[in-house]
Amino acid sequence: MPAKGEATKKMIIDTAADLFSKKGFKDVSMTDICDATDLSRGGLYRHFSSTSEIFAMLISTERSFDERIKADESATSILKSALKELEKEILEPERSLSLAIYEFASIDDNKELFADLEKKARKKWMDLISYGIKTGEFKDVDPVKIAELILYYYQGIRMWSKITDITKRSAKNYSSMIISLLTGEEI
Amino acid sequence: MPAKGEATKKMIIDTAADLFSKKGFKDVSMTDICDATDLSRGGLYRHFSSTSEIFAMLISTERSFDERIKADESATSILKSALKELEKEILEPERSLSLAIYEFASIDDNKELFADLEKKARKKWMDLISYGIKTGEFKDVDPVKIAELILYYYQGIRMWSKITDITKRSAKNYSSMIISLLTGEEI
Repeated sequence: MPAKGEATKKMIIDTAADLFSKKGFKDVSMTDICDATDLSRGGLYRHFSSTSEIFAMLISTERSFDERIKADESATSILKSALKELEKEILEPERSLSLAIYEFASIDDNKELFADLEKKARKKWMDLISYGIKTGEFKDVDPVKIAELILYYYQGIRMWSKITDITKRSAKNYSSMIISLLTGEEI
Repeated sequence: MPAKGEATKKMIIDTAADLFSKKGFKDVSMTDICDATDLSRGGLYRHFSSTSEIFAMLISTERSFDERIKADESATSILKSALKELEKEILEPERSLSLAIYEFASIDDNKELFADLEKKARKKWMDLISYGIKTGEFKDVDPVKIAELILYYYQGIRMWSKITDITKRSAKNYSSMIISLLTGEEI
């Protein structure tokens, strides 16, 4: 069980995520987060000193596939469950952080953080692809190319989901394209 | 030769494009555009009544491949030259309108315009893909799926080009992926 402090931290991040996805980054203040979490100013500042700190924590929580790879889970099963998650996210435009990410990234001090996040996300997918090639489940593709396709195609569809209606079918097309590129399986 | 009015209109749109790509949509006013174009208020308003009108015109200028298809140009050559253009755009993050598009689209009145733009962009690519399948140059792919990949992958990489450094190689990966999916050509 996480300590009480950890639970509060998680609650703050979840609540802030709602605000950021609705209003972007710039227009959310620490006062807004106090109001939405029912914490006192002191209570909030005990955990975070700024909205930047909360946002950085929020977008840095992506987990790698390392544990599942170490547990010898099949690459295809890891891939499919991860894509299912992404499909679900695509169909929840109201939870998209794309705009907030944009605003946050346009602050010069945050450039390095983003370069680092992108590197981690790339590595995560490249590791899975290389693992699948090694187990013989995936075709002998270029991991860099497919990792980039996975990441950028996702970002684009996620961005447009906030602007136009992205259908279930388009979300499905996203994952079936990737599965087919990696496994040759037509869906 | 275009009439003088048309040339001025084009000059206004080009100048505004620079401002929108730098500052987004919300933070650009008609006064900013007057200043940047050296037009008088009356001179500007003779052509456009609002920044919305200018922006809508700016993002609606995408041309279809119809003429080139009618002229029996090869589908592969149309595809490659179009991708070359996109590659160039990816490497010019300072000219990306992604943020401005976002801000413009978040105004409710503009939803319909975007749905319409997306439909046109989809149709443009689907027409080219179907044409290439008909001429036997392209593989028998699903035009919808590949058109979506072309559009969303592009939007994602364009968005991230404003946030992190997108390399020439990543831009190249984008077009080589699409060429290989359509023609089977490995690059």
